[in-house]
Amino acid sequence: MKVLVLNSGSSSIKYQLFRVQDWQALASGLVARIGEPEGEVKLNWLDSDEVSHSSQESLPISSHEQGIDYIIRALRDSGVLVEVGELAAIGHRVVHGGVRFKQPARIDDSVIEAIREVVPLAPLHNPGHLAGIEAACSHFPGVPSVAVFDTAFHQTMPPAAYRYAIPEALYTEHRIRRYGFHGTSHHYVAKRAAELLGKPLDQCNLISLHLGNGASATAIRAGQCVDTSMGLTPLEGLVMGTRSGDIDPAVVIYLCKHLGLDADGLDRLLNRQSGLLGLCGVNDMREIDQLAAAGDERAELAIAITTHRLKKYIGAYYAELGRVDALVFTGGIGENAAEIRRRACEGLERLGIRLDTELNASRAQRGERCISLPESEVRVLVVPTNEELEIAQQALRTVADIDR
Amino acid sequence: MKVLVLNSGSSSIKYQLFRVQDWQALASGLVARIGEPEGEVKLNWLDSDEVSHSSQESLPISSHEQGIDYIIRALRDSGVLVEVGELAAIGHRVVHGGVRFKQPARIDDSVIEAIREVVPLAPLHNPGHLAGIEAACSHFPGVPSVAVFDTAFHQTMPPAAYRYAIPEALYTEHRIRRYGFHGTSHHYVAKRAAELLGKPLDQCNLISLHLGNGASATAIRAGQCVDTSMGLTPLEGLVMGTRSGDIDPAVVIYLCKHLGLDADGLDRLLNRQSGLLGLCGVNDMREIDQLAAAGDERAELAIAITTHRLKKYIGAYYAELGRVDALVFTGGIGENAAEIRRRACEGLERLGIRLDTELNASRAQRGERCISLPESEVRVLVVPTNEELEIAQQALRTVADIDR
Repeated sequence: MKVLVLNSGSSSIKYQLFRVQDWQALASGLVARIGEPEGEVKLNWLDSDEVSHSSQESLPISSHEQGIDYIIRALRDSGVLVEVGELAAIGHRVVHGGVRFKQPARIDDSVIEAIREVVPLAPLHNPGHLAGIEAACSHFPGVPSVAVFDTAFHQTMPPAAYRYAIPEALYTEHRIRRYGFHGTSHHYVAKRAAELLGKPLDQCNLISLHLGNGASATAIRAGQCVDTSMGLTPLEGLVMGTRSGDIDPAVVIYLCKHLGLDADGLDRLLNRQSGLLGLCGVNDMREIDQLAAAGDERAELAIAITTHRLKKYIGAYYAELGRVDALVFTGGIGENAAEIRRRACEGLERLGIRLDTELNASRAQRGERCISLPESEVRVLVVPTNEELEIAQQALRTVADIDR
Repeated sequence: MKVLVLNSGSSSIKYQLFRVQDWQALASGLVARIGEPEGEVKLNWLDSDEVSHSSQESLPISSHEQGIDYIIRALRDSGVLVEVGELAAIGHRVVHGGVRFKQPARIDDSVIEAIREVVPLAPLHNPGHLAGIEAACSHFPGVPSVAVFDTAFHQTMPPAAYRYAIPEALYTEHRIRRYGFHGTSHHYVAKRAAELLGKPLDQCNLISLHLGNGASATAIRAGQCVDTSMGLTPLEGLVMGTRSGDIDPAVVIYLCKHLGLDADGLDRLLNRQSGLLGLCGVNDMREIDQLAAAGDERAELAIAITTHRLKKYIGAYYAELGRVDALVFTGGIGENAAEIRRRACEGLERLGIRLDTELNASRAQRGERCISLPESEVRVLVVPTNEELEIAQQALRTVADIDR
């Protein structure tokens, strides 16, 4: 049996196919530029000898439904999926599940309706997800579909963490609260960290740092999320590739008043033109790292602000948790940027965090690993994330639980 | 000799008169409703036997200049100031000094110009200060006047702490950065804390929490501010009486887009209708404390959010500082709300913070005191703030330094 994972955007669908038996990813790819004059279908796959291949086709793709059609055709042509009947489940990534979904959900009309209901909270994501879900459901009526939500893992936060100090009616009537995102990734690395620590997850206190182009930190007590840095939207919290993260909310008011920006202009400025890009003109951390090493002051400042913010979140979540078993780095930057990890952990000895700077910097190290000194009370771990695998496993488990 | 301290708002002037010899406050009062049909002049004073008296007069006050005139008259009538020549200095509180003022400044035309230049950054405060300063200068051309800035103490922050991750031009061209406020109070309590610790201030690492109707936290390394929770404006950071403190900046965008609020509406909502008031309908912590004790859930939530935020800042600043000598509570809430202190410090044993819960809760305790257990690595102190005294002393020192 196999599980197909779909991540549908407004004009694209990313996909990955897993073999359940060993959770091997057999194929992954992308359908891009749906609705444009010329679209694209990309596929990478492993043949039965585990040799990798890739294919690419340019052609117009009129709709998400046609996109799904092309994905299936590409999977069949490559031989990784002989017939649709092999699919035990389809797992859909859904960014926003509001307060309803604490777990993945087998998709039916009421789940679709619930995802539609929170479109105002995730206008850039949920409409694309819905298009992909509806296309897949109509295409494969016989295959159980499951929605896996980025927000679900964070639904265990207490009100003290998820409520903002704004008029109560904005919460009760407009649902303005902290939701948090990247939940699938934080949940995945938390489970892996527990494995590495040799303890059940429900006995682990963790701080997980998902640092990619988007970035978020999560405080996990006894395996459950108790706080996270992203908020109503993914804009809050850490410094990101193009997002500001935390700022004085009055900065937004100032920009509105003095620069005449409207909601769309503010959104563009803070979500797409800020963060690392706004500070130093580049949003790729590898490049920034090289620039800083070569003496570029703006790049150095961008790193300084990023790591200062990270350190503050580590301290804040340490205080919330009271005791921490491990600090877990993941995401493209978290997994690869040794200098960011070093500076984020520097000077935290009294919190029991002692990085092994050699292990941390070693380029020979790949994959899951511990990079703290043996005497470090808090273990520092690097755990490559795998959101697609987590979605595939959660989808299958959800189907199995329901069928049982 | 005496020093007069003035805190001029747009339609009021608060004042206090100190005797230099022993820094005794001889008189304090308020001129209110300047420019309205009926204003008010209030005065409390000590006579030569240190018996306190008060007076109150209702009459129209057309301008700040007339307000100053009435203050002097009231001080003379009460006998605490026989002639203006007794004034060694006048100290003016100024909320915003931009980046220019790291120290108090003897007022001249260029200082007035600099205060005017940052009016866009402090539109509610600096115009009133300027009116008061200009009135006092024209009234007492012979008395040296000194501006003491709320922002000055925070000017030692490094760029990693004061820069936001937004496009660089917003900093270079629009001066959007973290400034911080309550600096006079944080500086005062830091000096007192050093005294209580029996160490020179420049060897002290401190976290100071000024908790009043406005609230801010400051990280102090070797006696100098390295971070603070208020930002471009006093809106950022902790939960306050009517201000939200930290929120996802996208909440502001959301309110703009979906509730149609403009800059003034957003400002009103987040600065005057949020915080404790927005959460539970009351902004007086004593009342909230009583309500919560009586089982009011909204009051309890307001306290939970407030102390959760406080704990996060304590942890964040602990991580920034690496080592902390003392946590210092000040301001009306910081000095009096034992329950807030208890909950903010709860569970921070691994940070070396161990509150003596009995000492903390004791109503017999007043004034400067240590409320941590003897074995607490971080001392927890309560230090009543005295911004007026600090302004008076800084004003006199500035005048003396210049004259020397």
